[in-house]
Amino acid sequence: MNDDRLSVLEQRLKDVEDRLEIMNLLASYGPLVDSGDADATAALWTENGEYDVPGLHMRSREDVRSMVRSASHRKLIESGSTHFIGPAHIAVDGDRAVAVCESVLVLRDGDSYRILLSGSHRITLARVEDEWKIRHRITRELNGDPHARELLSPTNIAES
Amino acid sequence: MNDDRLSVLEQRLKDVEDRLEIMNLLASYGPLVDSGDADATAALWTENGEYDVPGLHMRSREDVRSMVRSASHRKLIESGSTHFIGPAHIAVDGDRAVAVCESVLVLRDGDSYRILLSGSHRITLARVEDEWKIRHRITRELNGDPHARELLSPTNIAES
Amino acid sequence: MNDDRLSVLEQRLKDVEDRLEIMNLLASYGPLVDSGDADATAALWTENGEYDVPGLHMRSREDVRSMVRSASHRKLIESGSTHFIGPAHIAVDGDRAVAVCESVLVLRDGDSYRILLSGSHRITLARVEDEWKIRHRITRELNGDPHARELLSPTNIAES
Repeated sequence: MNDDRLSVLEQRLKDVEDRLEIMNLLASYGPLVDSGDADATAALWTENGEYDVPGLHMRSREDVRSMVRSASHRKLIESGSTHFIGPAHIAVDGDRAVAVCESVLVLRDGDSYRILLSGSHRITLARVEDEWKIRHRITRELNGDPHARELLSPTNIAES
Repeated sequence: MNDDRLSVLEQRLKDVEDRLEIMNLLASYGPLVDSGDADATAALWTENGEYDVPGLHMRSREDVRSMVRSASHRKLIESGSTHFIGPAHIAVDGDRAVAVCESVLVLRDGDSYRILLSGSHRITLARVEDEWKIRHRITRELNGDPHARELLSPTNIAES
Repeated sequence: MNDDRLSVLEQRLKDVEDRLEIMNLLASYGPLVDSGDADATAALWTENGEYDVPGLHMRSREDVRSMVRSASHRKLIESGSTHFIGPAHIAVDGDRAVAVCESVLVLRDGDSYRILLSGSHRITLARVEDEWKIRHRITRELNGDPHARELLSPTNIAES
């Protein structure tokens, strides 16, 4: 009977650890992309992971790396950028997980700061060789676009 | 003796799971209210839960639902709104919990974005039929109002 | 054998609890400093903890207390300030931990709000008499300053 209790505890604790590992991964995106580290940012995704943002659909780590190394991203971070991402709602189901959150992108602009955009995100993660990685992330601008709102809906929160 | 160690572990793990469930609930408010889902937003509260914001004191799920469905809220989300809520300090005590956090409300405004308000929040939660729900949430505008600051004080952080 | 399984579980659970305690501590900084509570803010640091912000290097709880009590900080919070701090990436190693995150400081300004600055933070914590405390925190403005970006780099995320 103690064996059963132990097994249940081990599984519950594993679930908790999964959730905390995913929270930590999500919290590292902003710092890494604002530090300009292309390799570390790309390593958050699976090898063929997708990152779909307005105007650009990346389909691999290599694509993410190129985005971080691009002249336009370098310009952002050299002016001063903050990819500020809020706490996510996370649903874990075995080796898959879905996280939903919002963000603001803040830019230095002369002597002040301004919000360049505010976004909704739906992020699908997978456990790959014992590590959580982003398999698919879609970002849309919260500018009234109904599709941006839809990413935040309970259906998207619940389904993996 | 192993039985005792198991029981202690089970209780500690339950505390951890409670905390993570509350974090997940709090993280879902922004996405749900910005997606315009009145039912899912209201379901975060207990049946007679309260939500006290400047100019409006809601006293039930039905009141929360009406707020999300109101013309003024529809206008906000159709222009593009982000109820961006920061990580909360959480104190759990058995079947009660208190969370304290800050937020900014970001709005699309023509071609740019602006902060409509910045707020302090004190949220009391209760465990109801094995699920955490909001029993009372008060939000005040951080515009110099001493009461808004008071919501963030250690007394309010500590007491449940 | 069950003894071993129990010991492993106890250690894993302790790691989880450490991480959650650190998240809670980090989440309390904004509310406490915006509520103007000098003692509670200072108590987040070790007795001789450091807090290095642009233009001011505090080297003790007493220094943090003085900053919160200063006329300039009182002016900020009486106008309405939000030290809005995002979720942190946290690496724990025994009795030491490193957290990296970003923030925006939002101020009431007449009838509207503006972002006064956006910052990067690297926070080193230590376990002192069974409680996590900040031993060192450095904040830099994300205004293009390469040193501000460096605080967010993977090296700084990984090392404790």
